[in-house]
Amino acid sequence: MMTITVDLDTRSYPIYIGSGLLGQVGLLDPHIAGRNVLAVTNSTVAPLYLDRLLALLRPPARSGRVETLVLPDGESHKTMATAGAILDALVGQRYGRDCVVLALGGGVVGDVTGFAAAIYQRGVDFIQVPTTLLAQVDSSVGGKTGINHPGGKNLVGAFHQPLCVLSDSDTLRTLPDRELAAGLAEVLKGALIADAGFFGWIEAHAADLVGRQSAALNHAIRRSCEIKAEVVAGDERERGRRALLNLGHTFGHAIELCAGYGQWLHGEAVGAGIGMAARFSARLGWLPAADVARIQTLLERLQLPLRPPQVDAEAFLAAMAMDKKVLAGQLRLVLLPAIGNGRVTAEFPLRELQAFVRAELGTQ
Amino acid sequence: MMTITVDLDTRSYPIYIGSGLLGQVGLLDPHIAGRNVLAVTNSTVAPLYLDRLLALLRPPARSGRVETLVLPDGESHKTMATAGAILDALVGQRYGRDCVVLALGGGVVGDVTGFAAAIYQRGVDFIQVPTTLLAQVDSSVGGKTGINHPGGKNLVGAFHQPLCVLSDSDTLRTLPDRELAAGLAEVLKGALIADAGFFGWIEAHAADLVGRQSAALNHAIRRSCEIKAEVVAGDERERGRRALLNLGHTFGHAIELCAGYGQWLHGEAVGAGIGMAARFSARLGWLPAADVARIQTLLERLQLPLRPPQVDAEAFLAAMAMDKKVLAGQLRLVLLPAIGNGRVTAEFPLRELQAFVRAELGTQ
Repeated sequence: MMTITVDLDTRSYPIYIGSGLLGQVGLLDPHIAGRNVLAVTNSTVAPLYLDRLLALLRPPARSGRVETLVLPDGESHKTMATAGAILDALVGQRYGRDCVVLALGGGVVGDVTGFAAAIYQRGVDFIQVPTTLLAQVDSSVGGKTGINHPGGKNLVGAFHQPLCVLSDSDTLRTLPDRELAAGLAEVLKGALIADAGFFGWIEAHAADLVGRQSAALNHAIRRSCEIKAEVVAGDERERGRRALLNLGHTFGHAIELCAGYGQWLHGEAVGAGIGMAARFSARLGWLPAADVARIQTLLERLQLPLRPPQVDAEAFLAAMAMDKKVLAGQLRLVLLPAIGNGRVTAEFPLRELQAFVRAELGTQ
Repeated sequence: MMTITVDLDTRSYPIYIGSGLLGQVGLLDPHIAGRNVLAVTNSTVAPLYLDRLLALLRPPARSGRVETLVLPDGESHKTMATAGAILDALVGQRYGRDCVVLALGGGVVGDVTGFAAAIYQRGVDFIQVPTTLLAQVDSSVGGKTGINHPGGKNLVGAFHQPLCVLSDSDTLRTLPDRELAAGLAEVLKGALIADAGFFGWIEAHAADLVGRQSAALNHAIRRSCEIKAEVVAGDERERGRRALLNLGHTFGHAIELCAGYGQWLHGEAVGAGIGMAARFSARLGWLPAADVARIQTLLERLQLPLRPPQVDAEAFLAAMAMDKKVLAGQLRLVLLPAIGNGRVTAEFPLRELQAFVRAELGTQ
């Protein structure tokens, strides 16, 4: 087992990473001793891993009461209504401020459960047990919680750091191929913004990752968490540097919106968004063509899309402007001066971006 | 105008207190320059003060767009649905992370608007313009925001400090008598837990306060805010000392619950709760009978109830145990070793408390 510490002063917390952690009795005891726990999961994950998790929570672990709540699966349930169901369960059990809310599942379960924990009694403790690669390398780290609003994704939420994160890479054995690839897009993102050496490692181990080789997955999870933890520690509330983590995301959100939510997985859209960010960086003269080619080759080997779907270019541009990162009025993108070096910037001509998007979408 | 600073490190903020502040053009400019503002108020306050507020926000103030949202009045609207209506307005206006949400009104408007600001895009800036004495001396200070849940009051919320608070005591001229008295209960509470000299000042100026004499009100608001700010600065998230501010509140919440919400104003219930806390302190031998008499006399002069309504004692005890401050399992109360000295304690026999409540309610 590896342990990474996310360094956030009084809100610092450990991420436990490894194989077989859900079988490691005693691992959560320091966090739950004597406390009431609500374990929240979804209908897909519950039959796979809930029993193993409960074995970590129930005797001989000396927690208080342990209750479970199984949500329906899917992004369409990342809503205030679902957060309300978790709050109802907490109130219904009369759980107090010292309870612990635990999320077992992917990004949706983690985000909505974390949000409910953030607002129940103005904040109760929260443990993440992510079971998708995307959640293990990205959404479980950094304290962003939230739900979708009909007007946009993640428009409502809170910053709420967990007590700890337990990432058992064995849970990835049951992950559908598309979801594995979607997680690898975020792994690639971390390398591109911050670590050229890690990018090279991914190139060398792409087949191991796609083949779910444990040691490779554990290393990828660890290094991704380290990169994200380092960025988050310097900018918990995204006033500046944390925005680097949005590489591929402004394009990606537009893809998700234009393709219709649920058609593309978030990570798939981020993959194509990374491709777009690389090509736009090259168009601006920032990134050599050879590096774009390396990125595109790696996207392909990770079984990720390189390009956006053929949607209407004007709708795509409008969707980019709706992204909450630009709602303030200025369109910032994360671009790549080099592999391993991301930069948040508004320093590009808007007309260049428009022409680029139209060219990508085959309308110019 | 007096300015008090609530000292919370990077979240420190000023409270502006005085008469005629809503006519002081320019006062809010430093906080809203160039930013989109959503001003939230209710149907009672809007016809009285919204125009004056808008004059502070619109040209020559150089804010961005200014939109308004008028909520229905009343505690029954302190709900997730109302918070949702504020979020819908923010999304509908496409307001970004740099917007400012402003609450004009009493505690309900402030709490629900502050909560919406806390969770919109994981937290946007927030200005309080309290127009009731209760909000000016208590709920607008300290960053507690929240809504009610069918299972209990304020069970859902967030800590979210405002950018600034603007308390214009002239708004108290239109406040109903009962609401003025309710606010005075919180003024009295502050004196009892922390400042015997201020208690003496209230005794000397009770008639001025009830008569809405401006200088007296301004002093009472200032001193109450100072006391609360000092307590909050030492314990923002209520791990310890901040619980002092709950003097009269565990009894008070039980009164509100047993009388039926809406029958007693919160501050009225706190007034009677203070009376109960004083008498229970005396029963335990902590507080001299003469001090209980002083407190009761002052409650009367402030036109506050001294005693709970005659409800069922067992229901009352059950309601006390439901208070979220004791949901964790241990019943803590704020008791008075002396006037000006509150203490958070669980060091009393539960049987004494039960006997006391039964005696108060005339069933023993």
